[in-house]
Amino acid sequence: MIVMTPGASADEIGAVRTRLEKTGVHVVVMPGELTTAIGAIGDPQGVAELGLEGLPGVDRVVPISRPYKLASSELSHHEPSSFDVAGRRVGGGETFCLIAGPCTVESSEQTLGVAEAVKAAGASMLRGGAFKPRTSPFAFKGLGVDALKILAEAREATGLPVVTELLDSQHADAIHEHADVIQIGARNMQNYALLEVAGKLGMPVLLKRGLSSSLDELLMAADYILKEGTEAVILCERGIRTFETATRFTLDLGAIPWLKLHTHLPVVVDPSHAAGDRRLVEPMSRAAAAVGADGIIVEVHEDPEAALCDGPQALYASQFADYARDVGAHASLLGKRLA
Amino acid sequence: MIVMTPGASADEIGAVRTRLEKTGVHVVVMPGELTTAIGAIGDPQGVAELGLEGLPGVDRVVPISRPYKLASSELSHHEPSSFDVAGRRVGGGETFCLIAGPCTVESSEQTLGVAEAVKAAGASMLRGGAFKPRTSPFAFKGLGVDALKILAEAREATGLPVVTELLDSQHADAIHEHADVIQIGARNMQNYALLEVAGKLGMPVLLKRGLSSSLDELLMAADYILKEGTEAVILCERGIRTFETATRFTLDLGAIPWLKLHTHLPVVVDPSHAAGDRRLVEPMSRAAAAVGADGIIVEVHEDPEAALCDGPQALYASQFADYARDVGAHASLLGKRLA
Amino acid sequence: MIVMTPGASADEIGAVRTRLEKTGVHVVVMPGELTTAIGAIGDPQGVAELGLEGLPGVDRVVPISRPYKLASSELSHHEPSSFDVAGRRVGGGETFCLIAGPCTVESSEQTLGVAEAVKAAGASMLRGGAFKPRTSPFAFKGLGVDALKILAEAREATGLPVVTELLDSQHADAIHEHADVIQIGARNMQNYALLEVAGKLGMPVLLKRGLSSSLDELLMAADYILKEGTEAVILCERGIRTFETATRFTLDLGAIPWLKLHTHLPVVVDPSHAAGDRRLVEPMSRAAAAVGADGIIVEVHEDPEAALCDGPQALYASQFADYARDVGAHASLLGKRLA
Amino acid sequence: MIVMTPGASADEIGAVRTRLEKTGVHVVVMPGELTTAIGAIGDPQGVAELGLEGLPGVDRVVPISRPYKLASSELSHHEPSSFDVAGRRVGGGETFCLIAGPCTVESSEQTLGVAEAVKAAGASMLRGGAFKPRTSPFAFKGLGVDALKILAEAREATGLPVVTELLDSQHADAIHEHADVIQIGARNMQNYALLEVAGKLGMPVLLKRGLSSSLDELLMAADYILKEGTEAVILCERGIRTFETATRFTLDLGAIPWLKLHTHLPVVVDPSHAAGDRRLVEPMSRAAAAVGADGIIVEVHEDPEAALCDGPQALYASQFADYARDVGAHASLLGKRLA
Repeated sequence: MIVMTPGASADEIGAVRTRLEKTGVHVVVMPGELTTAIGAIGDPQGVAELGLEGLPGVDRVVPISRPYKLASSELSHHEPSSFDVAGRRVGGGETFCLIAGPCTVESSEQTLGVAEAVKAAGASMLRGGAFKPRTSPFAFKGLGVDALKILAEAREATGLPVVTELLDSQHADAIHEHADVIQIGARNMQNYALLEVAGKLGMPVLLKRGLSSSLDELLMAADYILKEGTEAVILCERGIRTFETATRFTLDLGAIPWLKLHTHLPVVVDPSHAAGDRRLVEPMSRAAAAVGADGIIVEVHEDPEAALCDGPQALYASQFADYARDVGAHASLLGKRLA
Repeated sequence: MIVMTPGASADEIGAVRTRLEKTGVHVVVMPGELTTAIGAIGDPQGVAELGLEGLPGVDRVVPISRPYKLASSELSHHEPSSFDVAGRRVGGGETFCLIAGPCTVESSEQTLGVAEAVKAAGASMLRGGAFKPRTSPFAFKGLGVDALKILAEAREATGLPVVTELLDSQHADAIHEHADVIQIGARNMQNYALLEVAGKLGMPVLLKRGLSSSLDELLMAADYILKEGTEAVILCERGIRTFETATRFTLDLGAIPWLKLHTHLPVVVDPSHAAGDRRLVEPMSRAAAAVGADGIIVEVHEDPEAALCDGPQALYASQFADYARDVGAHASLLGKRLA
Repeated sequence: MIVMTPGASADEIGAVRTRLEKTGVHVVVMPGELTTAIGAIGDPQGVAELGLEGLPGVDRVVPISRPYKLASSELSHHEPSSFDVAGRRVGGGETFCLIAGPCTVESSEQTLGVAEAVKAAGASMLRGGAFKPRTSPFAFKGLGVDALKILAEAREATGLPVVTELLDSQHADAIHEHADVIQIGARNMQNYALLEVAGKLGMPVLLKRGLSSSLDELLMAADYILKEGTEAVILCERGIRTFETATRFTLDLGAIPWLKLHTHLPVVVDPSHAAGDRRLVEPMSRAAAAVGADGIIVEVHEDPEAALCDGPQALYASQFADYARDVGAHASLLGKRLA
Repeated sequence: MIVMTPGASADEIGAVRTRLEKTGVHVVVMPGELTTAIGAIGDPQGVAELGLEGLPGVDRVVPISRPYKLASSELSHHEPSSFDVAGRRVGGGETFCLIAGPCTVESSEQTLGVAEAVKAAGASMLRGGAFKPRTSPFAFKGLGVDALKILAEAREATGLPVVTELLDSQHADAIHEHADVIQIGARNMQNYALLEVAGKLGMPVLLKRGLSSSLDELLMAADYILKEGTEAVILCERGIRTFETATRFTLDLGAIPWLKLHTHLPVVVDPSHAAGDRRLVEPMSRAAAAVGADGIIVEVHEDPEAALCDGPQALYASQFADYARDVGAHASLLGKRLA
């Protein structure tokens, strides 16, 4: 839809019409009281790339179609998609996935201890960072491949599938070997080269929303992965950057029901990074379950005060069973059981 | 806390010290490896107003004390405050207030119809707009005093106390006569003259967070009302303005547990204005109950397609009983019953 | 323009069509490959208020017309409007208005001293706060009517017209008596009752953009004033609230050329409140002149370290002549002289 | 600086003190009227990673030192750094760099045509995209290595050094071979793996600020590059994401003088992507020069209506000489000549 300025001349309107018709779209001119609008029916990407905003007499170009394709709920006839990760069902409306574990893998003992605690409490998967993105180049960056091996041991011991972040394409093989779900972090949501690498591995991908990414952009980023042939993409709301600094980020829980209307993909919530403070994590987790998320990814530590990274937002492993029960109760009001 | 630049000279540090000591605060100078910090112990407001940021050698002034006083949870020894509105308890952790009604009072029949429907479903109070703030001066602005009379009739018929917005101090007397709770809208959260007028009426005030107001600013605005002697202030999270436009505003549910830590005042959530789309209102209401809010203020209409204002976000009155039951179930998991 | 969901049925499309036709607008249905769009030609406000977003099969309602009327550049056939304030021309592209003075009127000596310094340096008007909006209710709120009298004295002594803020309708008469231009502060940009009071006084109004107000909303707020019959409205960009806290607000200088395209009203810039730090004020003022603003409103003090309010952002009166010369040089590259 | 809650007990204060002392920092306890603050003097990174926010009685941890090191103006004793790119001086306060060229390299003719036009007008360097990041995976992504060869031809013909974006580490060698300055795009500002690859190439790097990155984060990202041994990093302000959608992004020109206070690195401005509309590009470029930037990177096309990418924001090559003269005039008021 091209909106002309009120004073646009017939010649200017004609020029836009001609330009559009050359690209093969069907054109409808709608003169209004003040403003003429010109509808272009056909290839929306092509029309967007014409750059008509710069032509004389053009006020705005208003896209009518949604910009994402493969992630769209249209594609699945409004049925949610679901898939299995080592026997846990993700998506589909009958299960709730509790993905829990330490921010960073620090040692074999620490990781195994947390893994057993969250397994006992009913967690569906184990999370843990091997390669950590850090804002400052002088901060601790994770144990790398050694951490992947520790996660694999913890999977062996508990049966929990492992979720870990892919930060750089050179680690893709190692992560493919040791993990079950690849996480793409918020700061890499528009690192398109990395999205394509992740999509090509043929494993489920947990895609975090960028700090300042719109939901449309999140679904276009999912399209980057889906077009490589992977069907198993899990979206993750983890808080956006706003003017408010009382919490570390602003958790956008309204995004969950909006995504449920517009995409077939499962959606989980990361309350830990948004809150930045463990006292807020449990209430925000209950809210995530109540709003209709398909799961939660949360940080847990046996001794958060001694954690190498993000300790203040980690739940105590010793209290995780109570947490899981409380969050699960809200999920079960929506007819979901822990995956 | 005054932070000096790394290169600040002893004279510059001395000048800040002298300036602070003149105001009567106790001063502690802490030389660091790179940077000297100067602590000022005493009157924080006074130190903030000194404007030391402009002095040579000063990098930043970092406030250490919280800027609000009367709304602070310190004042109540961390006990939540609560009060009665026509027999309904607001705050205190044992009740959940469902405040429901039309965006705008359009007629006696419409208002009474909605009032009876929400009363039957268990609502605690009736909301309805008499004076409407409108972004465009050419939009419908409400029925005014006639609307107040209709609301009073509906209260008579159903026993529900009435919540309505005070937009201008010249309507204060009429609202005082006909309503039970005064609402201050988001756009007036920092209209200090109006806050003082509302505080002086001696009635409970429901104070909405401004579109771009921090939680600290919300609590300072509450201080404006509380200092007039009113003790009954209800805070309301209604969505903040962010870069995301998929929803009308971004509902900041993480604000609820943060507020519970920092203030004794009850906090309710308005999911209607944040969502702007009724399909999102029920999930966001469930989340508000699960996150620990003391209630919800929500728009309901018998025929939203014919509503004069904000129809797309209004719940159908015919479906309100189901809505109230679902939201109430999440509140009851936190040990709360409908007020 | 109503955009239907891809799966919308013919009946749903028909229902929207019928609903629109009842309001008297002309309707054009445009079936697309995936999505049908329905154009409504006629009363845009009426269509917006129908609330069609809630009807089955409707995806979005996309407004095509701009929502403001009286402030629109269409109204003036794309000619900028201009007017005189005590002999200074505001707007029109040939002058640049330097409005300068203390944040707050503190005393007769202080105000007169600054007024004389800025007058000597070529300032066009004197600014000064009599009634101050303060975030905390416990902060200094200005000298009130006494301050207005001091400003009037300074006008007498220097010939500079006076700009001061109207905070509450009860001060309207006093400000009308003593001032030349009424300022509406950012926090009151959507205090519609106050906008109408200001518009009725028949004096020029300087309207500051709200902290989180879009430019469309700024122009609709101007419409509130203009519809009362005042023709002299000056818009003011003063920084918006974003995630960035390095500066107090983010000065949106791109707004100036955007406003020049869309409104005939003059636009000035307030660099002081956006910067919050005097070292940034001069560069940002030069940029405001270079980007095409019609003027600047800036805070100046003889002894900023002793200022009662906002000292760190005030320019030194003793350096104001250099400042005025530097800023004026950039304005003169655009063919403007100091008003 | 650790701020305790007002009710913190002596034991809680003691526990924090003990914890800090174990890490080897010097500790100063400052009891205040309401709140105790504890200063830790020494290793700020180490203190931040302790995660003290989670300990009982702790309200907040307030960092006092700035988090960046190598980019800090402290490091250079407040002297701006500067360096040569093929004979053009960048930074240092005496030159202004005009970096101009097409958004995307489309063909040899197009690129050479633009290169000659901008060279004739006084441009310092040629920009052009070989690998394009695109929000949608279905959009045109650039000519790749062929584009790099075309840029090298244009350099040969005009003598202009070439700036082009590195999007993926696998293109690093090709870019190293053909380009003079490596651009890191906004979406990759926190792609730490890529920053390190760029830093290792030993070439100047132009680092764009992320859409929602704070200035502190921009300087920490620069630290990632600088620690690899490169000394030539150019920062670039290109607009941040805010609630305002009238312009594509909000150009934060106040960031320029703030950066000049806090870093020694040169800073340029990209007005094209922020504006998204060529009519705004010239005024915003003038403002960038006036505010004190060290240069501009701007998109120019011979026939923007036919551009494959971002045509509406490209300047007409035929008007570029006028543009360069106008922008240069503002730079020369600050004592700078075109590099």
